[in-house]
Amino acid sequence: MKDDKKEVSRREVLIGAGTIAAGAAVMSTGITGLVSKAKASGDAAYPYKKLDVNEVGRIAHETYFTKFCAETVLTGLFKPLAASVGEPYASFPLNSVFWAHGGLMGWGTACGTLIGAGTAVGLITAGDSKKVTTSGGRAPVAVGEAIINDVIAFYASENLPQYKPAAGQAKYEIKNQSISDTPICHISVGKWMDKEDVKFFGIERKERCARLSADIAMYTAKLLNEWADGTYKPRNEPLANALDNQITSQGNCSECHGDNVPTAKGA
Amino acid sequence: MKDDKKEVSRREVLIGAGTIAAGAAVMSTGITGLVSKAKASGDAAYPYKKLDVNEVGRIAHETYFTKFCAETVLTGLFKPLAASVGEPYASFPLNSVFWAHGGLMGWGTACGTLIGAGTAVGLITAGDSKKVTTSGGRAPVAVGEAIINDVIAFYASENLPQYKPAAGQAKYEIKNQSISDTPICHISVGKWMDKEDVKFFGIERKERCARLSADIAMYTAKLLNEWADGTYKPRNEPLANALDNQITSQGNCSECHGDNVPTAKGA
Repeated sequence: MKDDKKEVSRREVLIGAGTIAAGAAVMSTGITGLVSKAKASGDAAYPYKKLDVNEVGRIAHETYFTKFCAETVLTGLFKPLAASVGEPYASFPLNSVFWAHGGLMGWGTACGTLIGAGTAVGLITAGDSKKVTTSGGRAPVAVGEAIINDVIAFYASENLPQYKPAAGQAKYEIKNQSISDTPICHISVGKWMDKEDVKFFGIERKERCARLSADIAMYTAKLLNEWADGTYKPRNEPLANALDNQITSQGNCSECHGDNVPTAKGA
Repeated sequence: MKDDKKEVSRREVLIGAGTIAAGAAVMSTGITGLVSKAKASGDAAYPYKKLDVNEVGRIAHETYFTKFCAETVLTGLFKPLAASVGEPYASFPLNSVFWAHGGLMGWGTACGTLIGAGTAVGLITAGDSKKVTTSGGRAPVAVGEAIINDVIAFYASENLPQYKPAAGQAKYEIKNQSISDTPICHISVGKWMDKEDVKFFGIERKERCARLSADIAMYTAKLLNEWADGTYKPRNEPLANALDNQITSQGNCSECHGDNVPTAKGA
């Protein structure tokens, strides 16, 4: 067959999806250039009201020093919603995502900010099953998935941290930004520690993670606001690396594999 | 000073915690041999009723083929609780964790089963702030964190998958188990694919992830049942690798770093 990847995308666009179910999803939405407007937020499981992005950042930065990355991002997003919407935000236990700090209880896997952001986006967009992808993208996904994918891509590709605390709010003056090229906590924080020449258990690293938490909370709020306006369009092709590499993966293969990047069966 | 690690553990036992706050937490609970009984589940944000571990496994396995890893584990745990307890489980949007499939939207980071398990444990134990650790452990943590840490350690150290579907329920007869030595999806599934000699986008790999989802859901239910009985004790020292390596991390350093494992400042 001429194009194996295209064939895979038609049969199994969603990672691990049953062949028939995924195929049906694709056929019902088409496979090319599909960017749908999100449904109004009234359909969401957790009703959404547009956020003040700067307020989200301020809350996230100040929350980090006691709550760490995951709960901090969720607090930055849900605390204003508890004030503007009320329930179910007001009684939601924000500490229910605390365990994701340090890449899941210090295991250094996915950055906890992404678990906080994912939890918020997942609950807010749970009622919106409309499928979206990039122009030409191979894998239409639920709009909430596309938003989270864009937040992850932002985390991996941007020079961070970018957030600047107001006068008197910084516990340390950050000198360096770094690009992680991955959503992995261990690699992301390690690269920044190397550049800034500081240790992990110190206020310098905490200030970095506090600002990065603000960055992720703010970018998530920005995309959720677009979703609420019906103007959100995915920036990054969902599942592109997994389809290209034929295994769940990132784009930084040589960072762990060196010159011996294996080829997965089917790739 | 004689023992830097011990000094760090007294000052900053919780990763990223503000020095004063973390120090206070340690002082109030003591730093040696602390294993506290969990509070009764009546204090939990999401009221818990002990689960039938085998039912959890059966639901998780059958759910995987349409919902993938994260939502599958959450469904295995919350569907029986929706039946036995009702709200807030009955109306909880299970698809709110769907995005964590494939290590967060296919990025291959933390296995999605751990996000599903973490979400459940986080919501159920949110009201229990009692601190626990292993005997001699350096970092007392909230009981929910200890449970999740044990689930992650189980994932990383056990030969998986272990779950055996009932007659007629398997979509493929699995030949091999593998030890991941990591909570990372990409490495975990890659090692198993190598051993089984199968590709990612196929029913063989899906059956493996379905059984592994059952394993993680069942082990989580087992620990939550112990917590409800007041008999739960942490199996693994929370944050041990992070404290030892002075950066959020796992124990498999050479797997990515080869012979050139860097030493973090402070280690």
